[in-house]
Amino acid sequence: MSDIRTNALREPVEVVDYLFRRLHQLGVRSVHGLPGDYNLVALDYLPKNGLTWVGSTNELNAAYAADGYARVNGLGALITTFGVGELSALNGVAGAFSEQIPLVHIVGTPSTISQRNGMLLHHTLGNGDFNVFTNMSENISCEVAKLNNPAEIADQIDHTLRQCWLNSRPVYITLPTDRVTTKIEGDRLRTPIDLSEPANDPEREEYVVDVILRTLYAAKDPIILVDSCTIRHRVVKEVTDLINKTNIPFFMTPMGKGALDESDPRYGGIYAGSGSDPEVRKRVEDSDLILFVGALKSDFNTAGFSYRTSQLNTIHLHSRLCAVRYAEYPGVRMRGVLQRLTKKVDLSKVNTVPVSAKSRTIRAAGDSQVITHDWFWPKVSDFLRKRDIVVTETGTANFGILGTTFPPGVVALNQVLWGSIGWSVGAAQGAALASKDAKDDRRTVLFVGDGSFQLTVQELSTMLRHGLKPIIFLICNEGFTIERLIHGMEAEYNDIVPWDFKELVTVFGGSDKTARKIQIKTRSELEKLFKEDEFNKAAKLQFVEVYMPKEDAPAVLVQTAEQSAKLNSKLK
Amino acid sequence: MSDIRTNALREPVEVVDYLFRRLHQLGVRSVHGLPGDYNLVALDYLPKNGLTWVGSTNELNAAYAADGYARVNGLGALITTFGVGELSALNGVAGAFSEQIPLVHIVGTPSTISQRNGMLLHHTLGNGDFNVFTNMSENISCEVAKLNNPAEIADQIDHTLRQCWLNSRPVYITLPTDRVTTKIEGDRLRTPIDLSEPANDPEREEYVVDVILRTLYAAKDPIILVDSCTIRHRVVKEVTDLINKTNIPFFMTPMGKGALDESDPRYGGIYAGSGSDPEVRKRVEDSDLILFVGALKSDFNTAGFSYRTSQLNTIHLHSRLCAVRYAEYPGVRMRGVLQRLTKKVDLSKVNTVPVSAKSRTIRAAGDSQVITHDWFWPKVSDFLRKRDIVVTETGTANFGILGTTFPPGVVALNQVLWGSIGWSVGAAQGAALASKDAKDDRRTVLFVGDGSFQLTVQELSTMLRHGLKPIIFLICNEGFTIERLIHGMEAEYNDIVPWDFKELVTVFGGSDKTARKIQIKTRSELEKLFKEDEFNKAAKLQFVEVYMPKEDAPAVLVQTAEQSAKLNSKLK
Repeated sequence: MSDIRTNALREPVEVVDYLFRRLHQLGVRSVHGLPGDYNLVALDYLPKNGLTWVGSTNELNAAYAADGYARVNGLGALITTFGVGELSALNGVAGAFSEQIPLVHIVGTPSTISQRNGMLLHHTLGNGDFNVFTNMSENISCEVAKLNNPAEIADQIDHTLRQCWLNSRPVYITLPTDRVTTKIEGDRLRTPIDLSEPANDPEREEYVVDVILRTLYAAKDPIILVDSCTIRHRVVKEVTDLINKTNIPFFMTPMGKGALDESDPRYGGIYAGSGSDPEVRKRVEDSDLILFVGALKSDFNTAGFSYRTSQLNTIHLHSRLCAVRYAEYPGVRMRGVLQRLTKKVDLSKVNTVPVSAKSRTIRAAGDSQVITHDWFWPKVSDFLRKRDIVVTETGTANFGILGTTFPPGVVALNQVLWGSIGWSVGAAQGAALASKDAKDDRRTVLFVGDGSFQLTVQELSTMLRHGLKPIIFLICNEGFTIERLIHGMEAEYNDIVPWDFKELVTVFGGSDKTARKIQIKTRSELEKLFKEDEFNKAAKLQFVEVYMPKEDAPAVLVQTAEQSAKLNSKLK
Repeated sequence: MSDIRTNALREPVEVVDYLFRRLHQLGVRSVHGLPGDYNLVALDYLPKNGLTWVGSTNELNAAYAADGYARVNGLGALITTFGVGELSALNGVAGAFSEQIPLVHIVGTPSTISQRNGMLLHHTLGNGDFNVFTNMSENISCEVAKLNNPAEIADQIDHTLRQCWLNSRPVYITLPTDRVTTKIEGDRLRTPIDLSEPANDPEREEYVVDVILRTLYAAKDPIILVDSCTIRHRVVKEVTDLINKTNIPFFMTPMGKGALDESDPRYGGIYAGSGSDPEVRKRVEDSDLILFVGALKSDFNTAGFSYRTSQLNTIHLHSRLCAVRYAEYPGVRMRGVLQRLTKKVDLSKVNTVPVSAKSRTIRAAGDSQVITHDWFWPKVSDFLRKRDIVVTETGTANFGILGTTFPPGVVALNQVLWGSIGWSVGAAQGAALASKDAKDDRRTVLFVGDGSFQLTVQELSTMLRHGLKPIIFLICNEGFTIERLIHGMEAEYNDIVPWDFKELVTVFGGSDKTARKIQIKTRSELEKLFKEDEFNKAAKLQFVEVYMPKEDAPAVLVQTAEQSAKLNSKLK
């Protein structure tokens, strides 16, 4: 039953080739991971399928990198080995689940025979249970496929990859050693996997759009608020079309930043509740209709649940649900709704109030040479260029970046919801590699604090291994500032060992030809660096230590941290 | 219902104090982990309870370190934060489960109120499910306790810690932010947790012992084979007593190595099936009665399932089961059986054949200056001293160490079953710290390959932070030799980036006063180093790069790897 006779196959193809060709068809060019004896044979098949093996320094870093790769490329892939490898990657995969990133996690497992016999193999719990790790991953995967039965494998692969894309979430695939080169039917490889989203029921969609339009026409000052899921569920184009047609002013949330063009005259700013610029806050909260696209109202995305908006003034568009005021429309997907809205909207009935010219406030930071956050981030605005990929770490960077204005086409990568420190180092590697794979001459710019950097430092080595050229700003502020603001400003547990960070570039194999080490301690030094042609060209990996005071932080972080501390200690 | 009125408590104590005092009572002095906002307040309470915060560089390293700490100290503790922190530690905790190490994993979680309200907090999957991470950890914990209900917390803590000890396996405890300082009854702290193992039913035990004795008296050449669970389930003393009384020759398995004194004239060598010294193999496999204590016959512990022993000649003693030939005696624990055996055995009826004088064969390695494994490990025998703690990484080190003879009292730490590369670096940190905490002047000696070292390199920083003085031998052999032997000798995926490894000591803050960097490329250099007083004194951290050829490996590894490759590709 479980074997397909090779001579009955029209176009026999080995399981591993089938899987890798599907990944290639879906746009993957580099695969992250680490070798382990249960996946070694599979790795031999990467090159012939047009895939490059990245070979990260550990599995967590590899998972973070595959996540970053997916955010830029559209899909990412990770190969680990049974037990030890896959478990090390779990936090990275869980982050991709939380943040809705399509990531394919392939695990090389012992052979189906060893599993059936319950053999006492290395990388097991010693109890003969070969399902336990799959059970763990099931919690953080939108689909699981065990490639055991050759008759089902092609179907399983296609179905699983489709779910990964449609749900924009990780999937988990086990590849037993004795299935790697099993032959399965390959002729279906000629038909690409169907990635199209199911269309809304036209009658329901029409109904919802009519309700929305009636609400919109009645509003005096409608705005559009763009959040994370706009990016994750790929409706940036649909939202842009609606704005272009209607001229409704738009705002972005912290996790939505980077979705739309900030140089657009209809752009009003970042809305993060009480963490917003006061003018932005007033405008959004005074609006009588918020068309909220892809909302993800997490604590760190809302400056500690500090929105003062009313459901009575809000229309929610989600990937699988729309809601107008208190009425919910389950199963109605935002893509179709946005398209139909744009098509059907009667412009003569839409009121729009233009946003005021944004003043990029550089707060009075005095003549000091100390690099403070309120001085630093606006300067970064001037440094950034069109289509840069900007990766920010959880901590001061994630909040500081809200004080910048992006040039058009900048992509922002962050982990505002999951918030795993160290993620950005791996993610930057993956992002830079995705850009390189696409032969796209974008700069990857990483902002990471010294505390977070220590967790995943060795991924710098992988960047050098693959000739990547990110610009890395290491915020040297003596440890976990975000934690200090929540609790323990002077506590030893928030301190770190002061490393000679920039020398890591040399230790990991960087030479003057491939890398540059820079140390910045004053404002003048940074201003000079930002003006330097060579630096801006980013022709090699550039590692910049930027020294900042340990207690200093962006105002919005200070406020969010206060809210977190309150919530943690609340007793009723 | 869920609240205890403080004024009804005889000796009110805060939950966190209760937990930490229990850990202290059980011998824990240092706690590993990383800060995160859901555990910060708890960390404030460590010092007053006599506990030191280690502050590792990432959670996986911290888990490995807590594992190493537990192996030397008896119990280890790890504190992480909800979601991101705990998941990063999972591979380390799973390793402790697999290898049977008592490890207490405490996770700071959002408050019970936030959980009840399903708030969209950072470090969640964004789906309001606050149980998902507990569910994942349940798979690799022998007990789980959620400290939600004050009325139950003291009981939960005592019960969970007892299970941790008795099962010699990890437990998982969640500590919500709003329970940290809740008052519970503290008077029971005056009674230590009962750690005694349940006694065997005397009649059953007597019966089993009689069967064993009859079998023993009938044997002409009985031997004792000591494996991993002898150490894990703490019957080293009982086995030693039996040997001392009966003079039955004993052998150890790879995972059992270090349990008993190798300078004992009754010690016959390491038995690892066909991976053994031929003389040892013959003696064990020709024996007509093997008293096998704490067996764990995993692939890497048996040179690829290569035992040629018969169940008809074997008595198995386990922590919860004994077996004589094919007869099993469930529920009969080895401790009582061993004690009774020693007490009851009639020496006049026991036949023993002495082991032959062991010849420590240094294989002919020629006059070459190249450091090969067959030359290196016997040399290590001469270097090791009484009571050294020897940590070996999965790979050439774990197999190479079998070629050494330990002086008395040497403790061996390895992960032969779980085999997670990188583990040894964290484990060595924990082991050295446990020895320091015990004010015990033992040397910690680590052997780790360059490939594995890259995964967890930053834990070197934690060693320096805490003034630890391990001797680290970094086997520089250009990548994953153990993988090369299984598959892909020349494959790029088994290569690593060549780092300037020893400079990491300086980057991570080591000075001439606290650390020493050494590079060894020839046999003469190593011989000289081994003779050097300063080196042997180990008064600072010593980092020794030892260069070895990339294809060279201990013979037993070559053989085990071949067996693994066969098993992976076996189709029937």
